[in-house]
Amino acid sequence: MNITNKLSEIGRKVDPYLEKYLTIDLSDEFKEVVLHQVKTGGKRVRPALVILSCEACGGKEEDALPIAAAIELIHNYSLIFDDIIDHGEFRRGKPTTRKLYGDVMAMLAGLHYREAITEAINDSKNSHELHKIIAKTIKDLIEGERLDVLFEQAGRENESYIIKHRRSKVTLEEYLRMIRLKTASLIKTSCVVGGIVANAPDEYIKALEVYGEGIGIAFQIRDDILDIFAEEKKFGKKVGKDIIEHKLGNIVILYALEELDTDSREKLLSILRKDKVTDDDVRVAINIISKTKAKEKAYELGKSYVEKAITALDKLPQSKAKEYLIALAKFIIERSY
Amino acid sequence: MNITNKLSEIGRKVDPYLEKYLTIDLSDEFKEVVLHQVKTGGKRVRPALVILSCEACGGKEEDALPIAAAIELIHNYSLIFDDIIDHGEFRRGKPTTRKLYGDVMAMLAGLHYREAITEAINDSKNSHELHKIIAKTIKDLIEGERLDVLFEQAGRENESYIIKHRRSKVTLEEYLRMIRLKTASLIKTSCVVGGIVANAPDEYIKALEVYGEGIGIAFQIRDDILDIFAEEKKFGKKVGKDIIEHKLGNIVILYALEELDTDSREKLLSILRKDKVTDDDVRVAINIISKTKAKEKAYELGKSYVEKAITALDKLPQSKAKEYLIALAKFIIERSY
Repeated sequence: MNITNKLSEIGRKVDPYLEKYLTIDLSDEFKEVVLHQVKTGGKRVRPALVILSCEACGGKEEDALPIAAAIELIHNYSLIFDDIIDHGEFRRGKPTTRKLYGDVMAMLAGLHYREAITEAINDSKNSHELHKIIAKTIKDLIEGERLDVLFEQAGRENESYIIKHRRSKVTLEEYLRMIRLKTASLIKTSCVVGGIVANAPDEYIKALEVYGEGIGIAFQIRDDILDIFAEEKKFGKKVGKDIIEHKLGNIVILYALEELDTDSREKLLSILRKDKVTDDDVRVAINIISKTKAKEKAYELGKSYVEKAITALDKLPQSKAKEYLIALAKFIIERSY
Repeated sequence: MNITNKLSEIGRKVDPYLEKYLTIDLSDEFKEVVLHQVKTGGKRVRPALVILSCEACGGKEEDALPIAAAIELIHNYSLIFDDIIDHGEFRRGKPTTRKLYGDVMAMLAGLHYREAITEAINDSKNSHELHKIIAKTIKDLIEGERLDVLFEQAGRENESYIIKHRRSKVTLEEYLRMIRLKTASLIKTSCVVGGIVANAPDEYIKALEVYGEGIGIAFQIRDDILDIFAEEKKFGKKVGKDIIEHKLGNIVILYALEELDTDSREKLLSILRKDKVTDDDVRVAINIISKTKAKEKAYELGKSYVEKAITALDKLPQSKAKEYLIALAKFIIERSY
């Protein structure tokens, strides 16, 4: 079975658990709002990582299913709030929860997700340890989101804290710190919790941690590339969204700025700093970026993280699950959606 | 020691735990935003209930402190989001988190609170059971808030779900269900978790549950009375806030509507349904309400819940802590802030 089929297979197993945990203590009238986000689909990469990591450590799939659901719910929890914060209207080609039901109900639905996550953790082995790790991970997501917002170059004029703390420059190091928090942390945790429910030895958990962080960074780098260069139809999101949202926290933009001459750099920055970025502006910005080697450099950086990730798996015994983890790492940096 | 002094004493013991749990994994730059809400003060009724319930079951204060902090953090978590939802600018006489730092940062700070709550629960005895009870309780708060919003009579024109599901009438039964969720649930849970960390027998837990729910309902009824009839200076909130926010979910308003003749009822409802309720409108509305026995009826209803609550405590052995629980029940329905 190839890796995309494997992801679908795992998705079919995990999805009923998402609904199960979300519908505990949920009123009928609120159901459509709460379930909308998970029904918009997604690749289910994170629950696949949980289950494969568990199996790669000799654990059983059934022991991993509740915590795999918890992890996918965390991802969806973060998406609901990301869309509120960024006024997102479409995701995975479908309207967002806030677009369909309004910001207030989206917010309440999002808060409900957090409680479904607790229930799913409580159904897992070693839940005390899992609660702690997941609290830390969600705090990472929050801090990553905070930094991502502070890396924006315009907008949010009525948010005094953001205006005061906004960064006008972002180094590669600051960017990597932000994506470690925003994206890599949850992907790393997906692998770690898989090991924990398998009662894996510390050495395996450590290997999964290195693997998970590596592919997590590569995942965000690929997302950054796709944001600017994807085929919109396959991608399911608007191309150039980061430019429209004034984001400096995109590796392709950062590499381009590094390489461009003063005139082109100022032009690109001036677009990111416009109150309202038009479709024409996006085209001009992408055109400027395309003239640099930013895309290739970003891809190479992502690939180097994938390679380190795969090497870390040497510590785990040979298994079918480990082969899938290797295939998944390669998929993450090559994917077109 | 009288009950208000006791509340202050407990507050001084619990407050360092609030800060302790909130600052785990918190970046320096985000600290002022996150700590603002708990620094605005509050009566600390809920952590007092936790500690007194624990002690009334023979437990030790030190075993109750982390979960007392968790409960107070839940309360503050809900206030941060309430203020975002209702565009609240002042609370306890001080600017709200969103007013000072903007909605986006207030939201991220609010999400951080939820993780501090997890950490505090994890530090408590019987944490697996506590995680479950608290997840259920927070879901109650969310559902109560959803209903409270749906009981509003105007505003939120761009929230399609609210417009569609909004109630034009609210019965006493529907009101009681809403406040059971919005307010009584957390107060009940405060008492229950106090019993749980004391390893109390089921009979004691059951008594605390009845006590907690009774004073919880009385607490909201008193809040409703204060919203309309308080001395603003003592109260720390704007008088008539519920009227300004178009709320039908206030017992005083419901009782007044029941008693008024058609003309006055329509006048009061028309004010609640105005797009923008002015200070003059509030004065007219309060004047209409004042001509009814709504305030007295609400007070009597609240008092009947307090009496039932106190009776439930008969199941607990005599102790100083139990005496404080009785005093606290009386304080709740008599307080002026």
